[in-house]
Amino acid sequence: MKNLIPQPGDALLIVDLQNDFLPGGKLAVPDGDRVIPMLNRYAEAFRQKSLPLYASRDWHPENHCSFEKQGGPWPPHCIQNTEGAHFAAELDLENAVIISKADTEEADAYSAFQGTDLDHQLKNSGIRRLFIGGLATDYCVLNTVRDAVQNTYEVILLEDAVRGVNVNPTDAAQALAEMRDLGCRTACVQDVCLGLPPPSPLLTDLYQLTMLKSYADQGMTRQAVFEFFVRDLPPQRNFLMFAGLDPVLCFLETLHFPETDLDGLKQGGRFPDEFIEGLRGFRFTGDVDAMPEGTVFFADEPVLRVTAPISEAQFVETRILNLLHYSILVASKAARCVLAANGERRLVDFGLRRAPGAEAGWLAARSAYLAGFDGTATVLAGVTDDIPLYGTMAHSYIQAHADEASAFRAFCRSWPDNNILLLDTYDVMRALDTVIKLSGKLKKEGIRIQGVRLDSGDLASQARGVRQKLDEAGLEHIRIFASGNLDEHRAAEFITQAVPIDGFGIGTRLTVSDDAPFLECVYKLQEYDGKPRRKRSEGKATLPGAKQVFRQRDADGLFSGDRLALAEETMEGEALLQPVMRGGRRLHRQPAMEAMRTHAARQLQALPGPLRSLTEFTDYPVAISEALQTLTHRLDTQQQAFGWGLNGSVFRTIIGFFRKAF
Amino acid sequence: MKNLIPQPGDALLIVDLQNDFLPGGKLAVPDGDRVIPMLNRYAEAFRQKSLPLYASRDWHPENHCSFEKQGGPWPPHCIQNTEGAHFAAELDLENAVIISKADTEEADAYSAFQGTDLDHQLKNSGIRRLFIGGLATDYCVLNTVRDAVQNTYEVILLEDAVRGVNVNPTDAAQALAEMRDLGCRTACVQDVCLGLPPPSPLLTDLYQLTMLKSYADQGMTRQAVFEFFVRDLPPQRNFLMFAGLDPVLCFLETLHFPETDLDGLKQGGRFPDEFIEGLRGFRFTGDVDAMPEGTVFFADEPVLRVTAPISEAQFVETRILNLLHYSILVASKAARCVLAANGERRLVDFGLRRAPGAEAGWLAARSAYLAGFDGTATVLAGVTDDIPLYGTMAHSYIQAHADEASAFRAFCRSWPDNNILLLDTYDVMRALDTVIKLSGKLKKEGIRIQGVRLDSGDLASQARGVRQKLDEAGLEHIRIFASGNLDEHRAAEFITQAVPIDGFGIGTRLTVSDDAPFLECVYKLQEYDGKPRRKRSEGKATLPGAKQVFRQRDADGLFSGDRLALAEETMEGEALLQPVMRGGRRLHRQPAMEAMRTHAARQLQALPGPLRSLTEFTDYPVAISEALQTLTHRLDTQQQAFGWGLNGSVFRTIIGFFRKAF
Repeated sequence: MKNLIPQPGDALLIVDLQNDFLPGGKLAVPDGDRVIPMLNRYAEAFRQKSLPLYASRDWHPENHCSFEKQGGPWPPHCIQNTEGAHFAAELDLENAVIISKADTEEADAYSAFQGTDLDHQLKNSGIRRLFIGGLATDYCVLNTVRDAVQNTYEVILLEDAVRGVNVNPTDAAQALAEMRDLGCRTACVQDVCLGLPPPSPLLTDLYQLTMLKSYADQGMTRQAVFEFFVRDLPPQRNFLMFAGLDPVLCFLETLHFPETDLDGLKQGGRFPDEFIEGLRGFRFTGDVDAMPEGTVFFADEPVLRVTAPISEAQFVETRILNLLHYSILVASKAARCVLAANGERRLVDFGLRRAPGAEAGWLAARSAYLAGFDGTATVLAGVTDDIPLYGTMAHSYIQAHADEASAFRAFCRSWPDNNILLLDTYDVMRALDTVIKLSGKLKKEGIRIQGVRLDSGDLASQARGVRQKLDEAGLEHIRIFASGNLDEHRAAEFITQAVPIDGFGIGTRLTVSDDAPFLECVYKLQEYDGKPRRKRSEGKATLPGAKQVFRQRDADGLFSGDRLALAEETMEGEALLQPVMRGGRRLHRQPAMEAMRTHAARQLQALPGPLRSLTEFTDYPVAISEALQTLTHRLDTQQQAFGWGLNGSVFRTIIGFFRKAF
Repeated sequence: MKNLIPQPGDALLIVDLQNDFLPGGKLAVPDGDRVIPMLNRYAEAFRQKSLPLYASRDWHPENHCSFEKQGGPWPPHCIQNTEGAHFAAELDLENAVIISKADTEEADAYSAFQGTDLDHQLKNSGIRRLFIGGLATDYCVLNTVRDAVQNTYEVILLEDAVRGVNVNPTDAAQALAEMRDLGCRTACVQDVCLGLPPPSPLLTDLYQLTMLKSYADQGMTRQAVFEFFVRDLPPQRNFLMFAGLDPVLCFLETLHFPETDLDGLKQGGRFPDEFIEGLRGFRFTGDVDAMPEGTVFFADEPVLRVTAPISEAQFVETRILNLLHYSILVASKAARCVLAANGERRLVDFGLRRAPGAEAGWLAARSAYLAGFDGTATVLAGVTDDIPLYGTMAHSYIQAHADEASAFRAFCRSWPDNNILLLDTYDVMRALDTVIKLSGKLKKEGIRIQGVRLDSGDLASQARGVRQKLDEAGLEHIRIFASGNLDEHRAAEFITQAVPIDGFGIGTRLTVSDDAPFLECVYKLQEYDGKPRRKRSEGKATLPGAKQVFRQRDADGLFSGDRLALAEETMEGEALLQPVMRGGRRLHRQPAMEAMRTHAARQLQALPGPLRSLTEFTDYPVAISEALQTLTHRLDTQQQAFGWGLNGSVFRTIIGFFRKAF
């Protein structure tokens, strides 16, 4: 079977995802909108590899020959420049080449190849294989596939991203059968997109669904503004680093309820069927503003703002918290390790095994790398995000062999250019003798021992002993790696003491952030239907309204203070929250991991000295703009007027906020 | 579209998964073995719901008419009682009804219905819908489906669990087209099985794959024994509770490398293609012995033992650690909460939002419930594991309304029998006044307010005030729930002080186990090719050989001491490790969650008094059998004789172990 992962020579072709073919349109394909989240995922997979996207569209003049008035079979649809001819708003077509067809009165075309230069464009771009999805299976998709095969393209039909009209009930099935007969292979998202499959939308708190039902019962559909922020920094943190935005945007782009989940909810018996059926069309259509991943931030600062109809903005709360909390936790811990290593030592994430579950392992590799780690041992993260992979050998490998010498020799023969030998299974210095003896013999076979690893005991004194012996043996090129219970403090200590360790494998303490295992992060309603809102719970009061964070720098370019302001204010300094999604679609292509890493590195460089300390904890000044203070007072006074009153602790909270003001 | 989740009236029919149809068999279907992990998942989904499984088989006499010698088209195959006629060893057919066909010389039958009483059995059991998978698409599956449709069954064809012979290259595609034309619907695992999809097998450490290649290069294929254990308890734990076994067994049963992952590895360029191709047939075919989930255990005690060819036993290390570490961490924290609540208060997992990623949220709900929690807010866990769901409302819900009264009223109208109203958005006692006023009005609408929730401030004094006011208003039935920064210590304090809180929502501190955020758990090679192995790293030495844990009880039935012994020893007390998987197949049906919960509750009841303390930490006696001590000494002496020697710290470790001996 052949490779289904997109690669050079492949293109994605999205057929006719236009409003008139969607529910509510002139020529609606039943459930046609359900292909959108799938197509967005495919499109992202292609964009990520800089592979081309094409999108065809019906682009009819008003009196097109296919319309009933002109004797054709269809009602008027997809008339040029009308709303019905527009692509689905939620479909992300960034960078796609648009192919318009049937754009004169007399020409009809089901196929995207008919009367267009699509074949020419594809051939010119060296495309040999087309991944095809869209609407409708039994008309434009079928005809496009026929022509694609005719024009000698290999075709992968995206079975979860097509839907049929089914004028006769088996039309779509027959079309699929014909396409298979033509030699098309079929594929689903999980065949094409590597990585962790998105979890069920039922991975949420029950109350999100009970509230959704109640919002629906009341017809509450106005825009809500929610912000994600961290209430207080953990005592062991001078700053936090933002991470997890891209996973959140992926979640929002592809959010929908698959049949299985609707079925599961029905079987649960808790919700009425009509409510569950209503979830079938549930999508995220809102806006997101956020700090770029890798940005340093502080308590009370919104790092992500969601503006959407309240049901959508509400429902996504649980998963947004779930993704951001852990991503930030690990990035912030990793950033401390990066400060400790100071560019002088290599840092590798070894934490998958004790990361909390599958997704945490993957998120941790990603967060650590963007914070400045050099790589990870987690293969999946290497494959999905091009993160450099590192690996050595386990004690079990050595134990399974009759002795260390045969284990080392066998491993080096399997991996002549890529081997790090583990020294501490039995006795470090004896193992080192074995390595030194072997290195000469293996050299004759053209094998070069790359490094050794220490994983237990007094790493500093072992490393010194090992380095000295290696150097004496003329093996200066052999690097020393260390692992086992390491964190930023151990790394800093080794560096201060000039311990000759070249790289650290940092595992458990990274992936559980042991010294600060959680953040007081929340996602709070700040505005509904244009009106700012304020929660006043004791010790958990919030600042109302949609906000922005402005950051100022000193003469040396170091961060000198932030100011929380209302989103509409303009102030000195850099506005940290930027638009990233509008109407459920990303505004920018997923940033390359390397760009995020560079941003994170620059952020760490701009940290004022006291915040760089791993052991001393200092407050960074975060002020509150006058307008925001005034709004907060006004809301409290209004609410008081409405008879709710303010209790003492709320006053204390407000005063607490204002004490921070410049 | 109709429900694809198995429900009463559904049955799974597995067609002819026999050795002769698998690679290496007499009539091998290409890639036929790749359907096994899928079928095991389907079968488990059916068994979990006590729905019936049927498995058909060719059961030919030696001179069957379909054989070439007798003028038929096929070589001899599936001859009764031969190895070739046996079902695939890795296929889990527990509880399946076997349907033998073509079992006389003159009768041939491609269809499982032909000449069998399958239709009769199905009709008698009330089956109306059949989920069908197996071998081969273009022969026995096709004919079975034809007859099923003929016999008026609705058919769901399991498209990822069939493979074709393809005598002509499009045979299987044509068969699929015909089955669709007959009205079959097709489904894949993710349509049928709710829950988190299994992550890619690439969610592993790089070194597992580099070692696999080296084992393969050397032809090392002998049996290895690995054990999972925790080296030391965290300082804040008197005991740990085992959890995560079922997720591990699911992982082992379904482990395989999908095409996408093989493709991803190839694109990575690190491994030679022939090695990657070799992974295509990679399965787990080994044995597992383990403690039942919910068992209390201590440091150094193996809770899970894997015996398998070394490549398999090695490769599964990372994911086994990843699943068990977190499951045990949360179950152990939850068990402490259960001890604190003492059956007097309800405990609900509220921790998904700050759980580390998707899988952690789901694992945490499961671990907490089996440890004795009353339920979870995580919808997915409720749907997949029948865990009772709890939910209230968010502050945002209240803030989005003009005032609290309208928010409470609207929610109660949406949920007349199931409402818990949140009091602390603005001011607890004023919100309570609103609730009390509303309760009378709503009563007239037939709506009964069930409960209130407190989420901030001084919960104890608030709860007392709220209880008193509610009681004074004659609303004794309204329960008080509390959440916000709770853990076992807060719960215990409230109970000691008789604070009138009826239930606790325990969130972050449960799902990150904040006071003990990780365990020193490891998965270590203890034996290879029948020879016990011992790692002697400083501070990390292991006890060699396959082991068993024997637990003794005192006269009151309380745990009085454990003994680590060699697996072949028999000793007084209960042997805690039990066989759960042999040859890659489970020995028992997945235990019901309720059974695990009962076991966990009994384990907690049998804890000796000092271990029940939440604040005082005591050692529990774990001794080492004489045979195990002798073996350990013998290995060290042998290794010394081989010239490896023992350093001081290793001696100290041994002595450390033996100090624990009775």
